[in-house]
Amino acid sequence: MFVLGIDPGLSRCGYGLVRRTGSALAADAGGVITTDPTTSLPARLLVLHRELRAVVAEAQPDVVVIERVFFQTNARTAMATGQAGGVALLVAAEAGCEVVQYTANEVKMAVVGYGGATKEQVQRMVAAILGLATVPRPPDVADALALAVCHLSAQGLRAAIAATTGAAS
Amino acid sequence: MFVLGIDPGLSRCGYGLVRRTGSALAADAGGVITTDPTTSLPARLLVLHRELRAVVAEAQPDVVVIERVFFQTNARTAMATGQAGGVALLVAAEAGCEVVQYTANEVKMAVVGYGGATKEQVQRMVAAILGLATVPRPPDVADALALAVCHLSAQGLRAAIAATTGAAS
Repeated sequence: MFVLGIDPGLSRCGYGLVRRTGSALAADAGGVITTDPTTSLPARLLVLHRELRAVVAEAQPDVVVIERVFFQTNARTAMATGQAGGVALLVAAEAGCEVVQYTANEVKMAVVGYGGATKEQVQRMVAAILGLATVPRPPDVADALALAVCHLSAQGLRAAIAATTGAAS
Repeated sequence: MFVLGIDPGLSRCGYGLVRRTGSALAADAGGVITTDPTTSLPARLLVLHRELRAVVAEAQPDVVVIERVFFQTNARTAMATGQAGGVALLVAAEAGCEVVQYTANEVKMAVVGYGGATKEQVQRMVAAILGLATVPRPPDVADALALAVCHLSAQGLRAAIAATTGAAS
C-alpha cells in the first residue's frame, strides 16, 4: 500500500511517499515543490498544480494525506496555505485517490503519542519508524512523511481495535 | 471587452460577465455554482473546478477578476474560501486569462466611492451602472458583477489619468 503525504504551501509544498509491506513502513520518495515568489499568484498555483499532478501520477498512491489547517496567525499566509491546499485536494480528487486530512496535532499524537511534541521530535520519530539513519531533509519532506505515517498508524490502530472488538469500523 | 467577476466560495461561488462596448457596460451572464455540503471536500473542489472551467470556456473573458480575501473571523470558513479561491485562480490561469484581484473595500470604493458602503448599496449601484431594472439575484451574482465593474472602473480611471498626464501607466 502506498500513501502520499502532502504538506501544502505556496512557496514550499513538501511531499513524501510511504510504502507499507505487512507491518513494515518504508519511505519510497520525497521532495519539495517550490514556486517562484516573483511570479503572479495564478502562475504559481498553475505550477503547483502541474508539479503535484506529476508527483501523483508517478507515485500512484492508494491514499493521499493532506494536512488540515484551521488557523494561522498571519492572515495572508493562511490564505496562501488555503489556496495551495485547495489545489492539492483538487489534484488528489482528479487522480481518483482516497483523500484523508489530519491536523498537525493529530499527526503529533499518532507519531509521538503527545500532542505537544515539537516538530523536531516528530521528525526524529518519523525517521525511526521509517528506518532512516537521519531525519529526512528538507523538513518539508519529513512533515509530509509524518502525515503518511500518521495515516498508516491511525489505520493500524483502527484495525487493531476492530480485531479486538470484532467490529468492522 | 469581456470581464468575468468571480466571488469564490465553496458552498456558493458567484460569477458575472460584464461586456464593455465603448464606455457602456452591460451584464452578459451570471450565475452561482453550488457544491453539495454532504459530499467530501475534494469532491466539492472537483465540481467547482469543472463548473468554473465550463463558465470560463463559455464566457471567453479577456480578464478574470477574483475577490482578494485577507481575513475572516471564522477560521474554518476562511480556509474553505482560500481553497475555493485557489481553484478559481487556477482555472483562470489554465485558461490563459489575465487575472486581477480586488478586496471588498476596493470594490466598494470603485463602485460606490465609499469604502464603508453596505453590500446592498454596492448591489444597487451595480444594477444602475449596468442598466438593470432590478438588483441581480441571488446576491452572489451581484457581488461577482461588482468585481467586474470595479475592474472596468479602475481601468477607466487609470486610462483617464494616463490621458491627462500624458503618461502610459
